[in-house]
Amino acid sequence: MALGKDYATQECSIARALEIVGERWTLLVVRDALYGVRRYNDFLVHLGIPRAVLAARLQALTEAGVLEKRRYQEAPPRDEYVVTALGRDLWPALRALGAWGLGLPGVQPMREFRHAPCGTDLGVVGECATCGGGPVPLEDVEILPGAGLDPDPADPVSRALARPRRLLQPVVTEPV
Amino acid sequence: MALGKDYATQECSIARALEIVGERWTLLVVRDALYGVRRYNDFLVHLGIPRAVLAARLQALTEAGVLEKRRYQEAPPRDEYVVTALGRDLWPALRALGAWGLGLPGVQPMREFRHAPCGTDLGVVGECATCGGGPVPLEDVEILPGAGLDPDPADPVSRALARPRRLLQPVVTEPV
Repeated sequence: MALGKDYATQECSIARALEIVGERWTLLVVRDALYGVRRYNDFLVHLGIPRAVLAARLQALTEAGVLEKRRYQEAPPRDEYVVTALGRDLWPALRALGAWGLGLPGVQPMREFRHAPCGTDLGVVGECATCGGGPVPLEDVEILPGAGLDPDPADPVSRALARPRRLLQPVVTEPV
Repeated sequence: MALGKDYATQECSIARALEIVGERWTLLVVRDALYGVRRYNDFLVHLGIPRAVLAARLQALTEAGVLEKRRYQEAPPRDEYVVTALGRDLWPALRALGAWGLGLPGVQPMREFRHAPCGTDLGVVGECATCGGGPVPLEDVEILPGAGLDPDPADPVSRALARPRRLLQPVVTEPV
């Protein structure tokens, strides 16, 4: 793939980050992975993404070490994609982009994020105003339906995410 | 322009943010604007971006309210692009992406960011561990050359950014 070739002369770390996650759909795949989505069909249905694009994004993210492919069934063979430590480290950037998006005209919060141990809503970069410090660990983030959420009853991922849960908690739906 | 049409069914605020800043080059234009770059030729030389792409990105960012066009010379008429409050709010996301990029193989820091009032290096989302709270105001962020910086002597923006300065401090070079 010809990812990021145009950025070759841009040596800054933002440009390098965009070489990996700047392609269309990539950050939404990572978002879903952080929400606990692991399986091809679940990404497919929840993202409404063309199959070839999803396959390419999953492969590129796996090669970049953001996702890790794990066999979860042998007959027939089936893999799932689990977000790695490198992928988890993208959460503050995604949270910051999402918080910024909330300031755009007409955008309603689809999800709320709360620091589970103390119940405080997360700040714009995933920090907790009550507990202090930088972004809190992902395992401690509760994800709840927001005021703008209108779950799609035909989408099992959308249904799962309509209930309070933790980031990274696996969303497992039946194979289609 | 057909920006973000594919994301139409993705109503979350991250997807909405990507509709505006997810196009190729866009976040690097915003990055340079936050570094103080304001003029077409300066973006052009510093980014090494095709002219048509730069013009399209500047127009889209202006329409989205991330940049504001200001006339700085009447004869001949010349405009510059100044980052708005909405654009400034992208800093935590850019800082988080840049901090993430530093964790990629072989990436050296091109720039360091420091909380000017106390001299503390900024955290991964632009927060100050010494002063606490979320991201510090951009005016208080000092931007310094990093270990990996190799300034381009032919690029006046690169030269200007090789010296310590503040975020948003205008980079003004002579018209080409």
